[in-house]
Amino acid sequence: MSLIAVGTVAFDSIKTPAGTAERVVGGAASYICLAASHFVKNQELISVIGEDFPQTFLDELRLRGVNQSGLKIIEGGKSFFWEGSYHDDLIGRDTLVKELNVLEGWEPKVPEEAVNTDFVMLGNLDPAVQASVLDQLENTPKIVVLDTMNFWMDIALDSLKKVIKRVNVLMINDDEARQLSGQDSLSIAAKIIHEMGPETVVIKKGEHGAIMFEGGKKFFAPAYPLDQVVDPTGAGDTFAGGFIGFLTNKNSSSWENKKQAIVAGAVLASFTCEAFGTERLFSLNETEWKSRAAELQEMSLANPLFS
Amino acid sequence: MSLIAVGTVAFDSIKTPAGTAERVVGGAASYICLAASHFVKNQELISVIGEDFPQTFLDELRLRGVNQSGLKIIEGGKSFFWEGSYHDDLIGRDTLVKELNVLEGWEPKVPEEAVNTDFVMLGNLDPAVQASVLDQLENTPKIVVLDTMNFWMDIALDSLKKVIKRVNVLMINDDEARQLSGQDSLSIAAKIIHEMGPETVVIKKGEHGAIMFEGGKKFFAPAYPLDQVVDPTGAGDTFAGGFIGFLTNKNSSSWENKKQAIVAGAVLASFTCEAFGTERLFSLNETEWKSRAAELQEMSLANPLFS
Repeated sequence: MSLIAVGTVAFDSIKTPAGTAERVVGGAASYICLAASHFVKNQELISVIGEDFPQTFLDELRLRGVNQSGLKIIEGGKSFFWEGSYHDDLIGRDTLVKELNVLEGWEPKVPEEAVNTDFVMLGNLDPAVQASVLDQLENTPKIVVLDTMNFWMDIALDSLKKVIKRVNVLMINDDEARQLSGQDSLSIAAKIIHEMGPETVVIKKGEHGAIMFEGGKKFFAPAYPLDQVVDPTGAGDTFAGGFIGFLTNKNSSSWENKKQAIVAGAVLASFTCEAFGTERLFSLNETEWKSRAAELQEMSLANPLFS
Repeated sequence: MSLIAVGTVAFDSIKTPAGTAERVVGGAASYICLAASHFVKNQELISVIGEDFPQTFLDELRLRGVNQSGLKIIEGGKSFFWEGSYHDDLIGRDTLVKELNVLEGWEPKVPEEAVNTDFVMLGNLDPAVQASVLDQLENTPKIVVLDTMNFWMDIALDSLKKVIKRVNVLMINDDEARQLSGQDSLSIAAKIIHEMGPETVVIKKGEHGAIMFEGGKKFFAPAYPLDQVVDPTGAGDTFAGGFIGFLTNKNSSSWENKKQAIVAGAVLASFTCEAFGTERLFSLNETEWKSRAAELQEMSLANPLFS
């Protein structure tokens, strides 16, 4: 087993300036698996759902090579549900409803066939749950990527810091990097986060792209400039899925491949924003995203100022 | 005469989270000329100052090839003065004092030796003054770049639109692009601004870099990630000066050279932010900025995802 993806599989009700969507499939792991499936033909999903979850979605994931023996289905249970409303700037958002449901008390179980794995994506979740997945691994993975959010910094900082110490790549947004480090400057924030454990820090800046720090090296990928952002939900998870998927495909954790992986993540995330939920990521084909990847890379390419 | 730079030469008192500076030399044209001087050995400054302006600054500009026969010195007059205080985010700022002084009623005069010029930088000023400079030119320049700000959109929109129609490149920040176009999406904003006249739209996003649109083409340059921003005053003007200076040096208005010019502007602007006023731009040497230019370009360079 080469890649395991941990995170929520859930329902979201979303309101954005472009419209609304009721109880669409969402959750970090849904986006991660879908994005990674463009690069990896075989991955293990570790999550929990209720009996209310649509079989069609699970079937579609399976078709894309997402194994589900680590996906617990709670009899009579209800899946995690989030309802939120975005501000006009499409950055700020208010959580209107959050029902943990089956997520409450869930203890993830890494299936036997996945305990030796080289690539691990810990999607945004309770840091204790993220740590429990690492505890069950029998080998040292090539790369563990952790995504988290301000919520866990607010209520479980110690637990979060403990799991951060164990990962190779921390992937957070700019506000979260500032909160975690107590620093306004992202380059100083990255240095402080390095000292917490991760050798690589990826800071997501939404429409402003993403910047990656590793040792003294930096890499920046712009976001693809969209005419309209319909729904940014899941863009960060898609980015993470594209990143880890690309590296899994290359079987590499090199700096050069990580730079490409950032571009892969940025490209896939741009599609996620074009429709509500996972809709656009589902309909996306290879020609579309390869063409946008080429365009995005071309966008950053200028001749050296002096040669 | 290959380049003329129009804009204010002024005093600024600045408060930022990093400290304060009292009556330091500022003004759009000061930054533009200093930045452009790294690429152009001969430029014409068109501006107005009072008798209170330090001769040492003017001498230093002259040493850098900035001709001053278009710089009017008003006997007994006082130079334009701005006092402002930046918010903690270093983006928002409050104007505390604004004394137009000699700027009031100033009619720019393009000196005889500069009426045939290929490169024109119209720094942020009353759009009627910007237009008056274009009226005095006897040839059609290769490229006219116009910088402006929300203030002129608020109080002189018609006049601004008239001069925008006459320029090749409009250079504004993201909020201004949204205000001018009435659109949230920057790529749609750029299309609407194209229709107003300029074939090229450069949108400055501060710490998030800059994006350039021309026809269907796009180019993005990140901002250099600084450990500390001491004072962002003049960063946009420095960016403009680096942009037009680079193009003047290449005697070109090609897309490929414009992409390099954006990088040149971004690099020089990053230095301006490192100290108050023009201080860092003054002390900057060629080795420093060439090295940062190489670093900034390296930061955006990944191998193609698929070859």
